[in-house]
Amino acid sequence: MTTPEAREQAVLEAVGKRREQVNEAIPEELPIQRPERLYEASRYLLDAGGKRLRPTVLLTTAEALADVEPLSVDYREFPDLGDENDDTIDVMAGAVSVEVIQSFTLIHDDIMDDDDLRRGVPAVHKEYDLETAILAGDTLYSKAFEIMLETGAPADRLVDALEILATTCTKICEGQSLDVSFEQRGDVTTDEYLEMIEQKTAVLYAAAACLPAVLLGADDETIEALYGYGLDVGRAFQIQDDVLDLTVPSEQLGKQRGSDLVENKQTLITVHAREQGVDVADLVDTTTVENVTEAEIDDAVAVLEESGSIEYANGTARDLVARGKDRLEVVPDNEARDLLFDIADYLIERGY
Amino acid sequence: MTTPEAREQAVLEAVGKRREQVNEAIPEELPIQRPERLYEASRYLLDAGGKRLRPTVLLTTAEALADVEPLSVDYREFPDLGDENDDTIDVMAGAVSVEVIQSFTLIHDDIMDDDDLRRGVPAVHKEYDLETAILAGDTLYSKAFEIMLETGAPADRLVDALEILATTCTKICEGQSLDVSFEQRGDVTTDEYLEMIEQKTAVLYAAAACLPAVLLGADDETIEALYGYGLDVGRAFQIQDDVLDLTVPSEQLGKQRGSDLVENKQTLITVHAREQGVDVADLVDTTTVENVTEAEIDDAVAVLEESGSIEYANGTARDLVARGKDRLEVVPDNEARDLLFDIADYLIERGY
Repeated sequence: MTTPEAREQAVLEAVGKRREQVNEAIPEELPIQRPERLYEASRYLLDAGGKRLRPTVLLTTAEALADVEPLSVDYREFPDLGDENDDTIDVMAGAVSVEVIQSFTLIHDDIMDDDDLRRGVPAVHKEYDLETAILAGDTLYSKAFEIMLETGAPADRLVDALEILATTCTKICEGQSLDVSFEQRGDVTTDEYLEMIEQKTAVLYAAAACLPAVLLGADDETIEALYGYGLDVGRAFQIQDDVLDLTVPSEQLGKQRGSDLVENKQTLITVHAREQGVDVADLVDTTTVENVTEAEIDDAVAVLEESGSIEYANGTARDLVARGKDRLEVVPDNEARDLLFDIADYLIERGY
Repeated sequence: MTTPEAREQAVLEAVGKRREQVNEAIPEELPIQRPERLYEASRYLLDAGGKRLRPTVLLTTAEALADVEPLSVDYREFPDLGDENDDTIDVMAGAVSVEVIQSFTLIHDDIMDDDDLRRGVPAVHKEYDLETAILAGDTLYSKAFEIMLETGAPADRLVDALEILATTCTKICEGQSLDVSFEQRGDVTTDEYLEMIEQKTAVLYAAAACLPAVLLGADDETIEALYGYGLDVGRAFQIQDDVLDLTVPSEQLGKQRGSDLVENKQTLITVHAREQGVDVADLVDTTTVENVTEAEIDDAVAVLEESGSIEYANGTARDLVARGKDRLEVVPDNEARDLLFDIADYLIERGY
């Protein structure tokens, strides 16, 4: 019996070891080449850091499916699930492809939201300029497809993998479009909000979880179950992000606590509160994160606790994680699968 | 022996007949769906018109390869080149995919160049807004891959087709990046300029020409030759565009003649003139297209004629078209191939 703290520590270590390898693979898959400024801008956010949670999910799922000891096999030469040949698959290329998609969406999202900072550094359109940022995102977009082709999977599986990548990108755009349109609306329901974060955030976790099954040749039932795992834990991750914005001290969060409230950003919490009759627009009067006080945020959080909205969000995230973990039953019972359970728990138990 | 006018008329008719079918296929492949505003913005430029030259090249190349009479076979159920089966390929989906890529690049380019008008209607970021325009382009990007998957080609060919699509998009981004960087430089050479338009413009013609060969199962030699045809005529097309900007009356051009000179946009003509010692920045003093006079443009054109720069551009375009046509020798001698010859000629003989 391990403590939650020990399990969180184990997850962070496991993520960290895979992150190191992903960080090595990124410049290999996406070298700075001519025109240098374009590729430097494309790499800027990728090089600025990131937890690499999605690549970690992908690599760990590959290990669970292949039933191998975690970190014991070269991700660049991963054994095919079928016995009929000695072919290997470069699952690391798949992991980098997913991270590259994530980075492309961050660059374009920061332009759309006019956010100045990302991962502690200026957003790409601030460090460079609007033109370069649009083009850097566009370059990463096609590079993600090129990198997926580097996995060396058989043609029929590659077609499926590329289709998942394309439909995932389309859904992310649809989710972002819904998110933007929600800003103009005062009547978004919790169901609509959950649909939006499924498209905007969770589908890329779903792709990360099911792509190794596709590339390594797992059956359809396994692919579908893993897609569901990613969809569930991805939504839980986003909901937890919204909770943390209210509950974690500003210094630990790296930005003003309650900034979502100040900026009138809708979250599962505020959408639920409005459904309970709370005047959400009135929760915080100050309109800039620079001027808001901790006392104002405390008062707002007290109202959202009173309406049960924070507990509703926590409960929804917990339910999603429990369901996501159930879906992993199709995967062999091994250490890597245990890690996938722990990653799911970590996504909602993490402090920031 | 037909006259040039009769041949141009024949090309326009042939393009027109394929355009009608492409225009029917676009809403089938890209229906307006939820979120409606996103898909309406994505379809906005596609619905505003366009010659559909790239889809026409793709469809006509398919007919030449299959050695069938032009317009005699349903593009949605096109016969495979191999005899071993009755499988058919939806080459129309391939044609729409290429046009969708073209439309995505136009939407993002208009943002980068801050152009207000396109095809006689407001640019997408003017008709909608910056956020929607970025997102509409991103949506078309992934949709192009999804639509290519609709061709129903065997997996190995589909992988090749998707790889061509991805590398083409990467090159277009690299070309656009070079184009932007050239604006800051006064020492661009004709070779650099030709490399830039190869990446920015010609690669999509090359993709359009070789994709039917890939999808229908032609051999590598044919695929490569057709790629070269597209690369040559695509560059000729762009050079001719630059020539027309100087030589066609404003009313026929649909915009101020000589606008490239007014806006100090580099073209093969100005790059060549500078190599001949012409002070290109001094050619037109007026800095806005609203205030420039026809006399000023006439004087500038006279200087560029004197330096041999317009003839140099014309000659380069003619050479490229001649070389592109030579490459078609690998294709069966038939009516569709004749049309590919005529399209090549049309690209540099067209009046606007």
